[in-house]
Amino acid sequence: MQAGASSRRKVRAKPALPPALEPGLRGRVHVYTGAGKGKTTCALGLCLRALGHGWPVLLVQFDKGFDGENEHYAERRVLRGIPGIDLVPTGCERMNPDGTFRFGCEPRDVEEARRGLAAAEGALREGRHRLVVLDEALSAVMVGLFGKEEVAALLDLHAANPVAELVLTGWNAWPELVERADLVTEMRKVKHYYDTGLGARPGIEF
Amino acid sequence: MQAGASSRRKVRAKPALPPALEPGLRGRVHVYTGAGKGKTTCALGLCLRALGHGWPVLLVQFDKGFDGENEHYAERRVLRGIPGIDLVPTGCERMNPDGTFRFGCEPRDVEEARRGLAAAEGALREGRHRLVVLDEALSAVMVGLFGKEEVAALLDLHAANPVAELVLTGWNAWPELVERADLVTEMRKVKHYYDTGLGARPGIEF
Repeated sequence: MQAGASSRRKVRAKPALPPALEPGLRGRVHVYTGAGKGKTTCALGLCLRALGHGWPVLLVQFDKGFDGENEHYAERRVLRGIPGIDLVPTGCERMNPDGTFRFGCEPRDVEEARRGLAAAEGALREGRHRLVVLDEALSAVMVGLFGKEEVAALLDLHAANPVAELVLTGWNAWPELVERADLVTEMRKVKHYYDTGLGARPGIEF
Repeated sequence: MQAGASSRRKVRAKPALPPALEPGLRGRVHVYTGAGKGKTTCALGLCLRALGHGWPVLLVQFDKGFDGENEHYAERRVLRGIPGIDLVPTGCERMNPDGTFRFGCEPRDVEEARRGLAAAEGALREGRHRLVVLDEALSAVMVGLFGKEEVAALLDLHAANPVAELVLTGWNAWPELVERADLVTEMRKVKHYYDTGLGARPGIEF
């Protein structure tokens, strides 16, 4: 299928769009949301595919920090070995020394999230990456690490220079985000083993 | 969270389960289905995560063949470079020399799909892989490459020796499959750029 003449005209009418970017090349905005399993893993799969084309990829992750010693997310061990991906894990350690989970939103958590936003902003301005993933950006908004307006600002930046495919993941998409996105998939939980009492398992959940 | 005593007893009551496999280690069955984008990409992300733990992974793909020359699925170029994954792409070329798509289900297509089923069966019997992905297995049933009973037979094999996490993807999950799976996510299409006339794009869809 090809984009019809009407949609092509519509895209060309936007003055901010560089003339070289045909509609088929203009990067779209994806949102993967919902309570079911598969949001981050889907974004990881998209990274793999883009890397297979030799595309420069930026993967920013919110509230999934790496302290340089304890890598909680095994997928990143593999990603680090693939040329072409810039990995920006942000977030402070959420596991307390006693094994409990640290909830809440401290200034250091906000600071880390802002570091992620800055990385995304820099990449969208520069336009070198062909895929930019903001993993758990929606969850970051939900827990108050930053606001919807910060996400809207990134979408504005992308719209002005849509070189990259822009992918956002997280639990709760909001109406304005759905409206602006080109593709939204709700990962709907039909059933999940969490509901049987089974917790997150290495190799499958992290 | 830990599995409660009741569910632990329930699992142990199955005579076919090797005693060494605690409920937390027993491989679960995942189904990723629905019309939205994200099924195969999610399975790819799961591969990445499992590989990050050093798990042996088997990825069988149905109706996504590779003739040794034209690699239609860029993600496989990257996967081939990651140690620990056994990649079994099956299916005959679907692009005709004139650029049209070859629909239908010829004997050679069925033969290729059976090769994929045999690979899955062998792996589930052997029990060496910790993650077994049957990508587009549900779509293969939908187009008639094999039947639901063949999938049920694989689930039986897995239930008898559930070493691997078993992941199936494809459009149409059927009730018996949902019933037997431990986790089912419907990738629900909230919106998709396909509906604007934009076709599949390299780097994003393949």
